[in-house]
Amino acid sequence: MKESEVILKRQSTRLFFKNGDTDFFFNWLLGIGEVFGFSHGELYYLAQRLGKSPKPSTWKKVFLSHADYLAQKLGNPDLSKQSKAQYYLAQTYSIRSAIQFINPFSEEYLPTVQRMEESFKKATYSLKAPIEELTIHYQESYLPGYYLHSGDDCPTLIMIGGGDTYREDLFYFAGYPGWKRGYNVLMIDLPGQGSNPSRELTFDVNAATPISLCIDWLENKNPKLNHLAIYGVSGGGYFTAQAVEQDTRIQAWIASTPIYDIAELFKKEFGSSLKTSSWLMNAILKLVGNLNESADLNLQKYAWQFGTTDFKKAIDEVFKGAKVVNYHKVQCPCLFIMGEGESAELQRQAKVVYEAVKSKNSHTRLQIFEAESGADAHCQVNNLRLVHNVVFDWLNTIFE
Amino acid sequence: MKESEVILKRQSTRLFFKNGDTDFFFNWLLGIGEVFGFSHGELYYLAQRLGKSPKPSTWKKVFLSHADYLAQKLGNPDLSKQSKAQYYLAQTYSIRSAIQFINPFSEEYLPTVQRMEESFKKATYSLKAPIEELTIHYQESYLPGYYLHSGDDCPTLIMIGGGDTYREDLFYFAGYPGWKRGYNVLMIDLPGQGSNPSRELTFDVNAATPISLCIDWLENKNPKLNHLAIYGVSGGGYFTAQAVEQDTRIQAWIASTPIYDIAELFKKEFGSSLKTSSWLMNAILKLVGNLNESADLNLQKYAWQFGTTDFKKAIDEVFKGAKVVNYHKVQCPCLFIMGEGESAELQRQAKVVYEAVKSKNSHTRLQIFEAESGADAHCQVNNLRLVHNVVFDWLNTIFE
Repeated sequence: MKESEVILKRQSTRLFFKNGDTDFFFNWLLGIGEVFGFSHGELYYLAQRLGKSPKPSTWKKVFLSHADYLAQKLGNPDLSKQSKAQYYLAQTYSIRSAIQFINPFSEEYLPTVQRMEESFKKATYSLKAPIEELTIHYQESYLPGYYLHSGDDCPTLIMIGGGDTYREDLFYFAGYPGWKRGYNVLMIDLPGQGSNPSRELTFDVNAATPISLCIDWLENKNPKLNHLAIYGVSGGGYFTAQAVEQDTRIQAWIASTPIYDIAELFKKEFGSSLKTSSWLMNAILKLVGNLNESADLNLQKYAWQFGTTDFKKAIDEVFKGAKVVNYHKVQCPCLFIMGEGESAELQRQAKVVYEAVKSKNSHTRLQIFEAESGADAHCQVNNLRLVHNVVFDWLNTIFE
Repeated sequence: MKESEVILKRQSTRLFFKNGDTDFFFNWLLGIGEVFGFSHGELYYLAQRLGKSPKPSTWKKVFLSHADYLAQKLGNPDLSKQSKAQYYLAQTYSIRSAIQFINPFSEEYLPTVQRMEESFKKATYSLKAPIEELTIHYQESYLPGYYLHSGDDCPTLIMIGGGDTYREDLFYFAGYPGWKRGYNVLMIDLPGQGSNPSRELTFDVNAATPISLCIDWLENKNPKLNHLAIYGVSGGGYFTAQAVEQDTRIQAWIASTPIYDIAELFKKEFGSSLKTSSWLMNAILKLVGNLNESADLNLQKYAWQFGTTDFKKAIDEVFKGAKVVNYHKVQCPCLFIMGEGESAELQRQAKVVYEAVKSKNSHTRLQIFEAESGADAHCQVNNLRLVHNVVFDWLNTIFE
């Protein structure tokens, strides 16, 4: 792939980096900084060290070195718990940022993921967030998760990420804002997510099965489980669609964006990634300094998540195995969220699903974020505070 | 002035705009967005509409139009109070941003300031912040302020801004974070600040007098007033120095940065602004598209705040009237804050004051923010969450 090509269109505004996927990731980091942890000042300092076309290895080094810098700040014995929490959160997502550019087939991958998990544990401890770690038995192995417990009488939200999330990411998408609003939140790595592929748990054909196991776990944990919602972002818009189609215990579905046909999405939107990049073409691109190394790395990571050796094979898996969700079976109230900076096919599928289900429940809505809202990027990473308000206002109406 | 020249060096990292003062202001807005209100997504959307070298009139139009956009969003009857609060905060500081580029001698200036005040009132009401408006009688007129009341037994912080602040700005510097930590916070426009110059209250030679009146007001309001601190940013580092020199009721002083000789600061750092810009030179700069219109406007605003007709005359006032603070009289514990992106003279004065008083109290500290902290810009606008933690951790130690 060329440097100018993106894996998936995910935003309408360019911030700093030449490559669109990298720039989207920077947009995302700035979004995390509006919830907690690092600031735009830190991120711009690091961006300027990186330059506009950083190599993945440089990105990794710069963010890991920032995590070390933060560790040094944490050595100050006078810090309050509140201050520590912010430093640990900054550290967690600095390591997270480095992981985005580490090859999952490399030896440093898993130890770095573990370092992020340890930092996150210290962050939530310092925040005094009522979080417990859990595992759900699955196919000779397990799915790891966090359960934020506000109270057995509180409504419960299951947060599901996509192809680029770790369960720690689910904390700023829903865990933290849910806690502040009195919700229980389950944050789980499904097969293919987080570091599950290292335990042979790669993307499943049907995410409804592990999600139903999560609901079993919640029922066991909370005998008073009553109001249960699910929220999926990115690929989570497909996983949650599968779950809502099959498990009627889910009483409200939020998706940014709802996806019913993942094969069609890949066909329409992953064009640049599917072009056969021969070794000769890559060598030439590299010679002229135009090889999209970040994209190559990201595609390798996706392949790893699918349990294949390259992205092309992963896509073939999707084309072979992925099922189209029968959205006509969805009965619960739905909040569909769509940014105008999203790719065309994501927007199309969101509208199709909305049109099909809108008459079934008066609460069902399609929330479109135009560019001026600042929330028009993929997963609303450019205005998380706004989407938190939209999501929890809506849930409060459903569960009042 | 040329487009490339700045009034005052206030940051080390360039974000988006060609002119340094404008870029610093954008940095500042991104900082507000990390506390509440608008997001970086909104701000980048507006920045891209503005282009890298916007005219002041365009800046004003774009931000006022964003305030209108937010008003339209606020028309949604289903919004929770929490959602409304964020929209009103976004609106308050969008109007604030427009005001930065409105000529205070123009007819639209005061009505726009009033619009900001109304939006702020609705924001704090929706936030359920325990805030009351107040006025303090001063020289045939009054100083307007907000008092955030957490409880008579709580410690109290007086927040003082500088040459570019309105009392609404003091809310994200100290009001909001102070409220979240159980502090009372007084936010006041001193002479020369906010819209006080429109009531003939221009910059005073001695800010200690109005600040002592604020303390009288606090004593009257809260008979149990016990732990009293003062925090000054930017020019507030000078105003608070004057107050601490003279009023021993102040038990702790925070300054980012402490300034004892304002005339020397102007002499050393406002060089570009003091060069005689003849009409001919300005006409030529305009012809080649290189006139720094924003700086010209800002300098007019400073002149208005000094009660003079141009900035040169204002500076002459400073050189004539401004007193050097005798920092040897300072007895209370001090927290001095200094970013490495600050101008050299601000850094020099901070170090001089620190060296002079550090042995008087074991709590006295000089906190230097290096670039990697993300808090190295003027007033730490690029990492407000961090400076909030540093300030209130320190105050909690003093007042424990």
